[in-house]
Amino acid sequence: MAVYTEVSDDDLQAFAAAYDFGRILGCKGIAEGVENSNYLLETAKGPLILTLYEKRVDPKDLPFFIGLMEHLAKAGVQCPVPLKGKDGQALRILCGRPAAVVTFLQGMWPRKIAAGHCQELGRALALLHQAGKSFSLSRANNLSLDGWRALFARTGQSGEDLEKGLVAKLQAELDQLGQQWPTAPAEDLPAGVIHADLFPDNVFFLDGRCSGLIDFYFACTDFLAYDLAICLNAWCFEPDGAFNITKANRLFTSYESVRPLSPREKQLMPLFARGSAMRFLLTRLYDWVNTPAGALVKPKDPREYLHKLMFHARVAGMAEYGLN
Amino acid sequence: MAVYTEVSDDDLQAFAAAYDFGRILGCKGIAEGVENSNYLLETAKGPLILTLYEKRVDPKDLPFFIGLMEHLAKAGVQCPVPLKGKDGQALRILCGRPAAVVTFLQGMWPRKIAAGHCQELGRALALLHQAGKSFSLSRANNLSLDGWRALFARTGQSGEDLEKGLVAKLQAELDQLGQQWPTAPAEDLPAGVIHADLFPDNVFFLDGRCSGLIDFYFACTDFLAYDLAICLNAWCFEPDGAFNITKANRLFTSYESVRPLSPREKQLMPLFARGSAMRFLLTRLYDWVNTPAGALVKPKDPREYLHKLMFHARVAGMAEYGLN
Repeated sequence: MAVYTEVSDDDLQAFAAAYDFGRILGCKGIAEGVENSNYLLETAKGPLILTLYEKRVDPKDLPFFIGLMEHLAKAGVQCPVPLKGKDGQALRILCGRPAAVVTFLQGMWPRKIAAGHCQELGRALALLHQAGKSFSLSRANNLSLDGWRALFARTGQSGEDLEKGLVAKLQAELDQLGQQWPTAPAEDLPAGVIHADLFPDNVFFLDGRCSGLIDFYFACTDFLAYDLAICLNAWCFEPDGAFNITKANRLFTSYESVRPLSPREKQLMPLFARGSAMRFLLTRLYDWVNTPAGALVKPKDPREYLHKLMFHARVAGMAEYGLN
Repeated sequence: MAVYTEVSDDDLQAFAAAYDFGRILGCKGIAEGVENSNYLLETAKGPLILTLYEKRVDPKDLPFFIGLMEHLAKAGVQCPVPLKGKDGQALRILCGRPAAVVTFLQGMWPRKIAAGHCQELGRALALLHQAGKSFSLSRANNLSLDGWRALFARTGQSGEDLEKGLVAKLQAELDQLGQQWPTAPAEDLPAGVIHADLFPDNVFFLDGRCSGLIDFYFACTDFLAYDLAICLNAWCFEPDGAFNITKANRLFTSYESVRPLSPREKQLMPLFARGSAMRFLLTRLYDWVNTPAGALVKPKDPREYLHKLMFHARVAGMAEYGLN
C-alpha cells in the first residue's frame, strides 16, 4: 500500500479547476499499488481516480500509457479512461509530478482465485490483444531479455543470501533463455500491445464477470503469447505452490475462443512461462536487495517465482498446461 | 496509513447483504488512520465508509461510539452516521472483527492550517459540546491522569534514549498535574462528551467552511475545556514549533461565540494544555518504544509534545493564548 505524495487541499482544488468535473467533495489516498500515488476523488459527477506518477515511471512513457487507455476504451475494452482537461490535455503536473485523472472502474479484484476467474481473464486478455492491434504507438519491453540481464548484474551475489546456489542457477537459466528466446515476431508468433502485469489485483470482477482491467503502466510491445504466460504464472498456481491445471485449461481455452494460438505460440509457451518467471523473480530479487529495513512497502519473496521457473523448466508441452 | 485487515470480495458481498445499500461497485482501502482498517465503498447509493475495528478499540466501547455518532447527527452535528442493517443493528462482524458502515462525509482535511480553519474549528467544537449534553451514555477517559501514570510506568527508562533527563522531567510534571488537576466537574467546570482527538485530519472543510468531524473513537466524558486545550496544541503551533497566538485567539473567540468559557475554565486552560501535551507525549513515547523497526506505520516524534508541554508550563494566563 502506498501514497508517496501528500496532495494538499489547495493544490488539489487548483488542479481540479483545469477539468470539467466540478468541485471535489472528497479525496482519499488508496492503500493499493506500489509504483504510483493513487487517490479516489469524490466529485459531483461521481468517483474518479487521480494518479501521481512517481519515480519508477519514466515521464517519456506516459503518452504511450495514456494513449493506450484512450485507444482501448474506444475499442470497447473496459478500462480506466483518462479525462481530458479544458485544454484538451490528459496529462498535467501536480505537486511536481506528472498526474492524470481517470474514470472509476467498477468491480473488485479477486482475493481468492477460482477457475471461473481464469476463464473470464482469458477472454479479456484476448480482447485486449485484439484491440491493441490498431494502436499506433509502440514501446519496447525493457523488462525482457536485456532487462533481465541488467537486473541480474545489478543484484550481483546478493541472491546467495536468499538461497545458496541461486546466482549460478539464474546465470544458467539466463544463458538458456538467451539461446532460445525468439528474436523477432512472425506471422505465427504475433507481437503487439501486451499488459505485461496482469496480476489478480489488476483485474476487476462484478458478479463473477470480469468488469475491466487496470494499471497499464508496464504495458509495452512484445509477443502476445508472453502476456498469456505472465497470467499463467500469476493466476494458475495455488498459494502453496501447486500448479492448478484446471485453471490453466480455462485460461487458455477461453483465450483461444477469441484468438486461437498458433502451433508455434503453443510450442514456445513453456519458454515464455520461464521468461515470465525470470522477469518477476529478478524484479522481486532487486527490490528484496534494495528495500531498506523499515520501508513502508514490504518486498515480496522472490522464491515464489524461482519455484515457478523450475516448474516450467520441466514442462514438455501444452498438455501439461491442460491444453491438447 | 493503514489497512490491517484484507477483506475478500466474497466476505464483503455477504456482509453487504445485511444492508439496504445494494450492490458494492468498488471497495478501496484508505491510506489514512492508524487505529482501524477503513475502506471506501462505492455503492449504487453513493460512497460509504466501512470500518473494521482493530485491536486498539475495545469492543465494549463500540456502542458508545456508534450511539454518539447517531446522537450527534440527529442533533445537527455534521459527522459520519452509522448505517443500520436490515436487522436494525449498526454493528456486525466482518473477517472476525467488529465492523460498521457509516455515511461518507464530504470535504477534505486541511494540510496547511490557516487562522480561518481555527475559527471554523472553535465553533464546530462548541456545537459538538452542546449537542453532547443530551447524550445519555458516558465513557471514562482512560487517557487522563491515571492513564498517563500507567503509560509513564510502562515506558520505564526508555525516554532517556530519546532525550537525556526526559524521565525525571515527566515524573516532576506528572506530580504537578496530579496535585493541580481538578477532581470533579462543577457548574463552572462543565464536563460532557469530548472528541479528545480533534487533530486536523479529523476535521473536514469544503470551500473554507468546516463540513464536519470524523473519528470519534477516542470520544469520552471529560471536562469540555480540556477538549479545547487538545485543539490548542494540535492546531495553534506552527511546524517549526512556534506558537501562533492569532490562531489561538480565533479558536477561543469562535468557541465562545457559541459557549462562553467560565472564569475557572479560563484559569485552568494552561493546566489543561499541559495535561493534553502530556497525553500525546506519552502515547507517542509508548508507540516510539513499542514500534518494531520496519513497522508499516512510522511512530511520530514525542518531542514535538515535550516542546508544547514546556511552552504551557510557562504560560500565566489566557492573555498569552490571545484571549483577554
